[in-house]
Amino acid sequence: MTPKPLVTLRTGRELRARVREWRASNLSVGLVPTMGALHEGHLALVRTALSTCDRVIVSLFVNPTQFGAGEDFAAYPRNEARDAALIAGEGAHVLFAPGVDEMFAEGEVTEVHVPGLDAVLEGAHRPGHFTGVATVVAKLLNLAQADHAFFGKKDYQQLQIIIRMVDDLCIPTEIHGVETVREKDGLALSSRNAYLTEQERAIAPALHATLMQMAEEFRAGGDGGRLELNARTRLTAAGFASVDYVAVVDAETLASLHVYDAMRPARILAAAKLGRARLIDNISVSSMENLPINPD
Amino acid sequence: MTPKPLVTLRTGRELRARVREWRASNLSVGLVPTMGALHEGHLALVRTALSTCDRVIVSLFVNPTQFGAGEDFAAYPRNEARDAALIAGEGAHVLFAPGVDEMFAEGEVTEVHVPGLDAVLEGAHRPGHFTGVATVVAKLLNLAQADHAFFGKKDYQQLQIIIRMVDDLCIPTEIHGVETVREKDGLALSSRNAYLTEQERAIAPALHATLMQMAEEFRAGGDGGRLELNARTRLTAAGFASVDYVAVVDAETLASLHVYDAMRPARILAAAKLGRARLIDNISVSSMENLPINPD
Repeated sequence: MTPKPLVTLRTGRELRARVREWRASNLSVGLVPTMGALHEGHLALVRTALSTCDRVIVSLFVNPTQFGAGEDFAAYPRNEARDAALIAGEGAHVLFAPGVDEMFAEGEVTEVHVPGLDAVLEGAHRPGHFTGVATVVAKLLNLAQADHAFFGKKDYQQLQIIIRMVDDLCIPTEIHGVETVREKDGLALSSRNAYLTEQERAIAPALHATLMQMAEEFRAGGDGGRLELNARTRLTAAGFASVDYVAVVDAETLASLHVYDAMRPARILAAAKLGRARLIDNISVSSMENLPINPD
Repeated sequence: MTPKPLVTLRTGRELRARVREWRASNLSVGLVPTMGALHEGHLALVRTALSTCDRVIVSLFVNPTQFGAGEDFAAYPRNEARDAALIAGEGAHVLFAPGVDEMFAEGEVTEVHVPGLDAVLEGAHRPGHFTGVATVVAKLLNLAQADHAFFGKKDYQQLQIIIRMVDDLCIPTEIHGVETVREKDGLALSSRNAYLTEQERAIAPALHATLMQMAEEFRAGGDGGRLELNARTRLTAAGFASVDYVAVVDAETLASLHVYDAMRPARILAAAKLGRARLIDNISVSSMENLPINPD
């Protein structure tokens, strides 16, 4: 298959002009926001977007405001040429790759908060992270004016925050969550897996395995709080250096759940440190959604 | 002049459908957000919008989230039929008058903060006020998808916050500030002037007169801080019950100014209580902008 030409745009002005042209031709527009370092998980987002929309924009912006002090902003893997080739190969139409100065004007102060959802789990361990995420996603959505935008369920809390924000602020874009892509051994694909040594890579699948076991035990009547304690022990025993959180929660509100209720969708989320990497993962408690999706 | 027919819409869905029709016909769209209780100041906004845009939406929504505990949310004057007749008379095309349930969905949590600008002056005296304003204006702008939106300079701090927010969040609407309309004696038109007794109405123009005198003294070399103290004394002597603030500030950042600098636009803002009313007003320190605009 010959890749279609990919256009790289650097400014919001150019992006808006391009989208206006598409609109004038009645073409539907999809946006896939990324921080680059693309893997099969991102490409699944691009494919879903291409199956839904006439034109697809992939944005590449490593957003400084969602990294905390001491986090890996500087080290975060960057390779725009490789990313561009990958999405060109899929048939995406525009790569929007603005610089930090383009996305954050001098004197910028506005913040989007999603209280309740943004302070728990990841939010409790990465203060300000979701304010950075919500604010930059609001900017990207308002710039692109896309009909649809696609986010991975790998960042499940982020997805719920974005759904809530878009609904609350009446942003005219439909948000789609796309299933996590996993290695054959269950490890969720992540740009940060590149930080793992060979030995750590062998330990990493224990995260997904632990969540799967928790889901089964929760469905069988186990208490959410007790399962969380057991999972911490299991992860540490498997070789994780520390566990930031592992929690059984309501799939929409992210409130803690103790008792399984087949009528109330539940999700299990976890974050744990392994060497230089901090891995996150999550699964649905409903067994139907947990079939692994292999990259090939 | 025969008024054009005015359409009243109650839901965001209907508003979006209407704007989509206009866009398909290449018509430009203007939005004038109001809380109703319309006076000549609002009508000046509508006229400016009509002179700039092919189609004009006036929104009428008394936003509960921008009123604090003990403020006048319940008492705020409401008369939709009269407001509709006034804007129909001007030739506005749509009155968007949603209910609270339409604007605030169940479970809504998202807040837009504009730190720095939203905590000083009005923000210091009405905690949470500008978060309520910024959030609901973001919603209205995203719903209407207007090319232009019009706000009065009477609420100067609000205008600066909205300009900053729209720029920061890349909302694709151009914000226009429209000059304050004043009575012949200088009193800025306000829906809350209806709260004044005859005696209080006679005192009220002292607010504008005091700001005008301050501007003259500031331009003549007076120290901003000292002028503020003098103005407080003057307002209390004139019969105001209390002065929340009176401040000489940078016209954009709202940072306090002590020394006049012809190259740095300055603004004087004040809020003071008089009977049941809390009056606010502001003027530019540059004398050119302070010529009174009479309603007829």
